[in-house]
Amino acid sequence: MRAEGGRSRNGAPSSIDLLLTDARILDVFSGEIWRGDVAVAEGRIVGFGAPRAENVRDLDGRWMIPGLIDAHVHIESSQLVPREFVCAVLPHGTTTAIADPHEIANVLGLDGVRYMLNATSGLPFRAFFTAPSCVPASPFETPGAVLGRNEVEEMLRWDRVIGLGEVMNYPGVVRGDPGVLAKLIAATGLPIDGHAPGLAGPDLWAYVSRGPRTDHECTTLEEAREKLRAGMHILIREGTATRNLDTLLPLLTERTAPFVHFCTDDRHPETLIREGHIDGLVRRAIAGGARPDVAVAAATIHTARAYGLADLGAIAPGYRADFVILSDLQTVRVDEVFVNGVRVAADGACLVDVPHGSDEDVRRTVRVDPGRLSFRIRSEGDRAAEARVIRVAPEQVVTDEVRLVPRTADGEVVADLGRDVIKIAVVERHRGTGNVAVGLVQGFGLLHGALASTVAHDSHNAVVVGVTDSDMRVAIAELVRIGGGQVVVADGEVVAVLPLPIAGIMSDRPLDDVASAARELKLAAGRLGCTLPAPFMTLSFISLPVIPHLKLTDRGLVDVDRFRPVSLFV
Amino acid sequence: MRAEGGRSRNGAPSSIDLLLTDARILDVFSGEIWRGDVAVAEGRIVGFGAPRAENVRDLDGRWMIPGLIDAHVHIESSQLVPREFVCAVLPHGTTTAIADPHEIANVLGLDGVRYMLNATSGLPFRAFFTAPSCVPASPFETPGAVLGRNEVEEMLRWDRVIGLGEVMNYPGVVRGDPGVLAKLIAATGLPIDGHAPGLAGPDLWAYVSRGPRTDHECTTLEEAREKLRAGMHILIREGTATRNLDTLLPLLTERTAPFVHFCTDDRHPETLIREGHIDGLVRRAIAGGARPDVAVAAATIHTARAYGLADLGAIAPGYRADFVILSDLQTVRVDEVFVNGVRVAADGACLVDVPHGSDEDVRRTVRVDPGRLSFRIRSEGDRAAEARVIRVAPEQVVTDEVRLVPRTADGEVVADLGRDVIKIAVVERHRGTGNVAVGLVQGFGLLHGALASTVAHDSHNAVVVGVTDSDMRVAIAELVRIGGGQVVVADGEVVAVLPLPIAGIMSDRPLDDVASAARELKLAAGRLGCTLPAPFMTLSFISLPVIPHLKLTDRGLVDVDRFRPVSLFV
Repeated sequence: MRAEGGRSRNGAPSSIDLLLTDARILDVFSGEIWRGDVAVAEGRIVGFGAPRAENVRDLDGRWMIPGLIDAHVHIESSQLVPREFVCAVLPHGTTTAIADPHEIANVLGLDGVRYMLNATSGLPFRAFFTAPSCVPASPFETPGAVLGRNEVEEMLRWDRVIGLGEVMNYPGVVRGDPGVLAKLIAATGLPIDGHAPGLAGPDLWAYVSRGPRTDHECTTLEEAREKLRAGMHILIREGTATRNLDTLLPLLTERTAPFVHFCTDDRHPETLIREGHIDGLVRRAIAGGARPDVAVAAATIHTARAYGLADLGAIAPGYRADFVILSDLQTVRVDEVFVNGVRVAADGACLVDVPHGSDEDVRRTVRVDPGRLSFRIRSEGDRAAEARVIRVAPEQVVTDEVRLVPRTADGEVVADLGRDVIKIAVVERHRGTGNVAVGLVQGFGLLHGALASTVAHDSHNAVVVGVTDSDMRVAIAELVRIGGGQVVVADGEVVAVLPLPIAGIMSDRPLDDVASAARELKLAAGRLGCTLPAPFMTLSFISLPVIPHLKLTDRGLVDVDRFRPVSLFV
Repeated sequence: MRAEGGRSRNGAPSSIDLLLTDARILDVFSGEIWRGDVAVAEGRIVGFGAPRAENVRDLDGRWMIPGLIDAHVHIESSQLVPREFVCAVLPHGTTTAIADPHEIANVLGLDGVRYMLNATSGLPFRAFFTAPSCVPASPFETPGAVLGRNEVEEMLRWDRVIGLGEVMNYPGVVRGDPGVLAKLIAATGLPIDGHAPGLAGPDLWAYVSRGPRTDHECTTLEEAREKLRAGMHILIREGTATRNLDTLLPLLTERTAPFVHFCTDDRHPETLIREGHIDGLVRRAIAGGARPDVAVAAATIHTARAYGLADLGAIAPGYRADFVILSDLQTVRVDEVFVNGVRVAADGACLVDVPHGSDEDVRRTVRVDPGRLSFRIRSEGDRAAEARVIRVAPEQVVTDEVRLVPRTADGEVVADLGRDVIKIAVVERHRGTGNVAVGLVQGFGLLHGALASTVAHDSHNAVVVGVTDSDMRVAIAELVRIGGGQVVVADGEVVAVLPLPIAGIMSDRPLDDVASAARELKLAAGRLGCTLPAPFMTLSFISLPVIPHLKLTDRGLVDVDRFRPVSLFV
């Protein structure tokens, strides 16, 4: 919002648009809750009272807190386009988000980031972005785009791009890789988000010294304390798969609140429905013993200040009139939500008809010729040759490597249901290179059919697992037909599908539709024998070669621990 | 420091320059004090340990806190040029100041501000500046320069100019004067310092809405609480004449510390010697009950963050190696001070030989022809005509208006020692206009001689009080001869003098010399009968027509309450 201001900020408000009376106002500066009135004009709070107003609303002693801020989110992980994401989170009191669009950037590069900016423009929501710093995440895969220093510099010049996105390549930072350092230098003086799971001691000091000043990857309190001491703001994350609030909550005190914030990072539709958004984190923080004013301040003024958003995060003159009316502070019961002084949500429902922008440029991103696909694996001449098999575990993004002699038939490797080993393939889908890498995976429990998805971090190629090559081919063909998404195939037929036509990773439907389609996918997978509680989540991390231990990209297997490609057969 | 960074920040340190071992480190993020080591390379802290280092210093359990920050200071009020000011405050642990150069700006405009920038460049001290917003302070005087919107915009483009200086014209802001608003708009998105003594309610809301986000003029706790609630950062001030720490200290808590800071505003040489600098405020805050880590955080990290200084205010990797070694935390006993990892002060002494920059452009600023001066006041024809007399009181900057029929001789008004009424004159000294305004003042107690000064807020014309016109003329002639300063004259002879040749407001001598000359002036004034404890302080505020009630500028008397010029005779 820094580029605005101007006349509406410095000119005299001609009249008061809205006067809210008898509110219990949470003053984030002092922590006090006081009973009073709030006047709004031209989208901003202009004072604590007014002799007259166009509209007067009596809040009857209900609580009023600033609009909540998600300090770090990948909107794409909601599988919702920005307008539907906004409609999903506004009723939970989130009025601002700092989003890293690195998922769509891996598919569409700068065009993808531009789409996210355009798609959030004109919404009753403040979406700020960080320039993705690590596209692609590794050199072992074929993404839709590569963002170098020049692209980062270009994005940093765009309005609403406020800093550098999570610098996941922490080994590169610590080693001093010129390409990574160039991006950090480009962002000197701006907020730089970190991502450094487990980093400690001298490596942590080197990482922080070079610029990143936040971390949302702490999984132990000890790790968070060390990073806070090193000057990092700690973003307490509650995603769908990664949940750190219970562990990290003791870090949040009245003393540390300026440096501790809340984020959702990756939150899937079903979690948005079941647990809400930042309101859920604040609620659980309070239930866990945080003082309400401290938890709210962490999620509002202190996040705004940490990211240089001068006019957000407080109920005070000159601030944007973004606020939340609660019927109960202790349990964060959201009644109504206002942005720019306009009521945008009430009783859990989004009240705004958010405009549909053009999204033609971000459709039809799955460029694969299904007719030319082959998932054959020739068996090695040596019948005792061991293969490297990816072993997945329920609700884990980390995989293991197991070695076993695969089952063969007619000189080709085939599924081995007795040992729960099936084929997996990653199909390059951005550039039509024809790259297909085929491997073996253990742990899905699939007895027949195939599962496929174009949501596959971070390059978002098409990933498919299946018992037969033919079902795998049908699954990929369906993804091509619908322009990306997630699909379950059995006996040559599509039995469940979630179309994600926007860049192959986002739906154009509302939250409830997406969540119910996702449920259908899970049930269909279960009917095929799949034993994983979240098979498509597991699938989506199986090709991310920056998470241990054995991963498959469109170019083949990667031993993440040694950070190098390896062959299927040992 | 935002414009720096670059290679030294993001490049790899080739070696560790300094390793401080066994320190009690104050972690401003958590409030914890922990015992450990700190490594410095290339002027920055790079970690909490190192296997080897060029220099190792064992701190033997002494405390280590970040360099202190003065959130708002007029360096000119110390009567020291920047290099001497820096030498005076470094031994007290102040390593950074946010300075408003509006005194010199009133004399020399942009050239004066440029001088302050040049004179602080290359010093082992971080001087940031705000662009003076109110030069001149009123339309009733002749300053050396007028700074409009264009000049403010130009200054805001300069390196180390980080925001807009205290917006003293709060009535103009509240009324919406286009000239004031234009400057606020020019500073949109940058820190804007406020100055709004006593402002409350709707006027306060209007003021804050238009941009100012700090205030250092609170004189009651209630006023500070209202301003904090309105979103203003409260700068607790302990100047020489204006002291608010005892009153405002209860505002500073662990909860409010991000929004409460310390400043000295106007601190004269004798106060610097007697009470030190920001260390003195922190010491008294702790003695008054503030937790040490909270008081230090308010004076370091939180001030840095409030003013957008990303690399200052903490002992953590990536931060500038500016820190203070204390032999006792509770009493803030400063042992040693480091800037950029270099020891710059120890045991109360400044260790650096600070370079003399060129100051030729800021000398010889007193442009008055003493031969043409006249302080005559013709008596009105009506022998009973009352005159408006300025009444001063000890240690007050506020004056009163008294009305009395002046004593006359030969048709001219003369001093009336029986009623303690003497003449006062303000002589325009910047442009050679020849403006001289003569009036009457009561309360100095002077029995003979004259006192004169070119330190006269904010326009810094020459102000003189005296029993005889001839001593007044000698006093002004001496000021012309020495290029500005403060002088005591008796019987045609200069009996004490403090030359302030830099813009007529700053000495080029060290602190001790200036303080002892100031003491001499005070003693000399006392010997002439002066009963005021700080006659030159009183003199310096007598021509500032934004402080009640009756003031004299080079253009005549001003009734400040009605904000309009008035004549001497009623």
